[in-house]
Amino acid sequence: MKKLVAGIDIGGTNTVFALVDEVGSIHGSGTFPTDLHKDFDDYIVALRDGIQEVSSKLDYPHKIMGIGIGAPNGNYYTGCIDSAANLRWKGNLPLAEKLKVLFGGIPVVLTNDANAASIGEMIYGGAKGMKNFVVITLGTGLGSGFVVNGEVMYGHDGFAGEFGHIAYLRGGRQCGCGRKGCLETYVSAPGLKRNAFELLSRENHPSVLRDIPFSQLTSKDVAIAAADGDKIANMALEMTGKILGESLADLVAITVPEAIFLFGGVAKAGSLIMEPTKKSFEENLLSLWKGKVKLVFSSLDENDAAILGSSALAWKELNR
Amino acid sequence: MKKLVAGIDIGGTNTVFALVDEVGSIHGSGTFPTDLHKDFDDYIVALRDGIQEVSSKLDYPHKIMGIGIGAPNGNYYTGCIDSAANLRWKGNLPLAEKLKVLFGGIPVVLTNDANAASIGEMIYGGAKGMKNFVVITLGTGLGSGFVVNGEVMYGHDGFAGEFGHIAYLRGGRQCGCGRKGCLETYVSAPGLKRNAFELLSRENHPSVLRDIPFSQLTSKDVAIAAADGDKIANMALEMTGKILGESLADLVAITVPEAIFLFGGVAKAGSLIMEPTKKSFEENLLSLWKGKVKLVFSSLDENDAAILGSSALAWKELNR
Repeated sequence: MKKLVAGIDIGGTNTVFALVDEVGSIHGSGTFPTDLHKDFDDYIVALRDGIQEVSSKLDYPHKIMGIGIGAPNGNYYTGCIDSAANLRWKGNLPLAEKLKVLFGGIPVVLTNDANAASIGEMIYGGAKGMKNFVVITLGTGLGSGFVVNGEVMYGHDGFAGEFGHIAYLRGGRQCGCGRKGCLETYVSAPGLKRNAFELLSRENHPSVLRDIPFSQLTSKDVAIAAADGDKIANMALEMTGKILGESLADLVAITVPEAIFLFGGVAKAGSLIMEPTKKSFEENLLSLWKGKVKLVFSSLDENDAAILGSSALAWKELNR
Repeated sequence: MKKLVAGIDIGGTNTVFALVDEVGSIHGSGTFPTDLHKDFDDYIVALRDGIQEVSSKLDYPHKIMGIGIGAPNGNYYTGCIDSAANLRWKGNLPLAEKLKVLFGGIPVVLTNDANAASIGEMIYGGAKGMKNFVVITLGTGLGSGFVVNGEVMYGHDGFAGEFGHIAYLRGGRQCGCGRKGCLETYVSAPGLKRNAFELLSRENHPSVLRDIPFSQLTSKDVAIAAADGDKIANMALEMTGKILGESLADLVAITVPEAIFLFGGVAKAGSLIMEPTKKSFEENLLSLWKGKVKLVFSSLDENDAAILGSSALAWKELNR
């Protein structure tokens, strides 16, 4: 009897789920638009049906031992999704409890995307055997998942690890959270774009980015232009890396991770983002830690990482 | 047979030790100047002799179960004091191991002052029953001890919790660590003094602080002047509180403690430092946490706190 868990990644656009074994092999998966169902209970039933359909297609004996879920604002302690801005259902959604009922009482655990990514890194990725590390996700925002003494740091309320909302520049750029100067307004996919636009306004170098409106420019455009030698695009990546490196040096002074893993859209720029980040990181570290903290890309495949993270969450819970 | 532990606090000036029971009652104590012995081995023997003398004066049956030590740059993992700037012995000092031999193999554990303070708060103070909290010590520097998931966060190398060395203002004031703009150059006893001098240079208000040279001004002078209504002194405490509140709001976004405990010389200014700190803290928190994280003074007596912290470290180790 093959033991499997269901890993579920709930995104603003799509919900993806898969059956995964303990070494991280995916035994079938499915997906549907997250906003297909107006009613949250209908959504959960669709999720159950989707997982059961994948399970029914496997032609060998297997058992679903537990379920792990990564979702925006997912709270490990309560099992609820708490007022997620980019989901259609409002309020406090008791996702873990409801799904547990539909699956006959097997363990169902929930956390946010960045924490799931950190557990994925710990179980299947580059953080195997590490007790203290951090995963930084550079996407629509800057997410962070901290592992301390071998356990995910959930904090008092389950929402620890909002490193994107420390102040990089007090009174600086307007952040979606209502405050100004948060790190993620400088370091994230939109942060990279804002850096490019700040540089377009400040410098006179010709740039292909001058022909793209703000609303259409993506972080990928910036990375492609930089790889083509565009000066402004390169400066934007350098600026992003400089700020990220400074901030990660502060992070080291607090939690002292063995390694920091970078993940997400901006990380796809490869050495164009890693080199300035490393340079600034090392320059800003307290001398005690210079050259001692690994700063690397996540070793998980971008396409499977969310699912692997969620399933790793389930395996970690089952093996407690 | 009364079970006791020896708590030792090694300061730059004095070494203090005491025998403490599990509820935090002190059963005798002693002290001697830390720099009395040129040779580190002689120092350790003096420490052993001092503890045994205190023990020999107790007229009831008792047993020393273990030893806990708080020391600058004390490393929990290695049991060594690692290049402490204000101790006369240089290099890596294997304190725990050597003391263990002198005491017949009982458990000897070592950590730094701020971590010891956090364990003292957890075992004997206001953090009883809390799983996630932080102790901030505002003395010669800004120290921090983090408890995460019920355990002290030592980080990968044993030196986690250097919150005083995150950047408050990059390129700002010269810090003793060789970098510029570290938080402790703005928030600590010397930081408060530097804030007062910055204000003396910037403002024209009359102030008793104008008659005291930099080399002689203490944070206590500033607090006394502020209590007497001195405008500059009050502004200095407000400035210190504003910066501390901003920084603690960032800290919450990372670890989400249930409570933050303030301790040390600057905390003695009472409401003069707490009020501006709380105001700034609440203003700068992400809305999710406004009004939800306790910001309070340590409930441990300043005179006993270091000893209680060290002895609590020993009790925690014995009860693992």
